[in-house]
Formats: sequence, structure tokens, C-alpha cells
Amino acid sequence: MLKHEAEAADRVFHALADANRRAVIERLTRGPATVSELAALLGVTVAGTVQHLRVLQDSELVRSEKVGRVRTCRIDTAGLRSAEAWLRRRRTEWEHRLDRLGAVLDDQTKEPGS
Amino acid sequence: MLKHEAEAADRVFHALADANRRAVIERLTRGPATVSELAALLGVTVAGTVQHLRVLQDSELVRSEKVGRVRTCRIDTAGLRSAEAWLRRRRTEWEHRLDRLGAVLDDQTKEPGS
Repeated sequence: MLKHEAEAADRVFHALADANRRAVIERLTRGPATVSELAALLGVTVAGTVQHLRVLQDSELVRSEKVGRVRTCRIDTAGLRSAEAWLRRRRTEWEHRLDRLGAVLDDQTKEPGS
Repeated sequence: MLKHEAEAADRVFHALADANRRAVIERLTRGPATVSELAALLGVTVAGTVQHLRVLQDSELVRSEKVGRVRTCRIDTAGLRSAEAWLRRRRTEWEHRLDRLGAVLDDQTKEPGS
């Protein structure tokens, strides 16, 4: 894995390791929300919410846009997809290993009878 | 999400947010390894490796067993599966939302011609 890829994975998994930040992602998968709406959802200050949003934006899990005085947040699927892809690669590698072990075992159990 | 589920998710994503711990998982998906082998792979001390393994075991990403003086580590798929399931739920929720938006848009573009 290249250094910048490893750093991106560090950031996205770190961002996900917080229940409030995951609550923001869960909310935004159902549609856009303003910073005030997200602060009300979390029951924390706007300043605290902005801190969480910064971590989520740095890891490409959330995008935001300011129109007038209102900042609206949306889901950014890039972060979700990269984290899911890393986990899927590990799981499929593991499953292929089990398949290979199964094949070796099959061959061994067939031998005595052949 | 129940409190213990949220705490489990915190732990598994925190465990994944470190390049050395991800390297251990990548290695173990290809087969079991001893603590010394993992320490050599990471280029860190055995004590440092044990610290990482503790984090990985607490989040059900790794299991280990000591026979005599040798501790052997294996992948524990429970952690990988729960993290992947969380991400997949978010992505599918997001995709369903896009489908619904697409259906609304289709209806609106059909109306003038109907």
C-alpha cells in the first residue's frame, strides 16, 4: 500500500471510530442537513459539530457547501467506498485461503480410497 | 444502535486506523503467524507488537493461542464482518435514496408529455 493510501485509510477509519461522527454519516445517507440540524441531532454545540465535520471532510466521508450563512452537508461516498473496499479485499483473501485449504483437505481424504 | 454495539464499532474502527495494525490483518488473512514473525514484519519490538495485538483482539479482528512459549495469531472474521456490515448498510441506504430521487425525477420529466 502506498504511503498516501495508508494515510487516507488511517484518516477514514479514525473518522469512523466515533459514535457522533457515525451518527452524522447515518443522518446524511438519508439526505443533506445543515450544521445546526446536525448539532441538534448530536446534542452538542455548533463548534463541536464543526470539529467533527472537519474530520469527516478530511477523510472524504462528508462534503459541505456554504450558501449565504447556511452550510449544508452531504454524504461523500469516496470515503465509505474506500473503507469498504479495504475490508472486502481482506475478507475475500481470507475466504480464498479457506477455499484452498478445503481443496487440500478434499485431496487428502480422497487419496486413501483411490 | 445499542450502546454496546456503538462501543464495539468504536473499537473496531479505532483498531483499523493504524497502518501497522492493518499490516497485521493483511498478513493474517494469508495464514497464522507467531508474535515474533509479526514483530519482524512490522519492524517493531515484540512488546510493541503485543500492544497492537491487544487492540486487535479487543475488537475481534485477531485471535491468539499460546502453546508452550509460542503465541500464534489468527484472523478473527467477526470484527472484519461487523465493520464491513456497518459500511454496507450506509452505502445501500444512500443508493436507495438515489433510486427514490431518480424515480421522482423520472415522474417529473414524464408529466409534461403525458
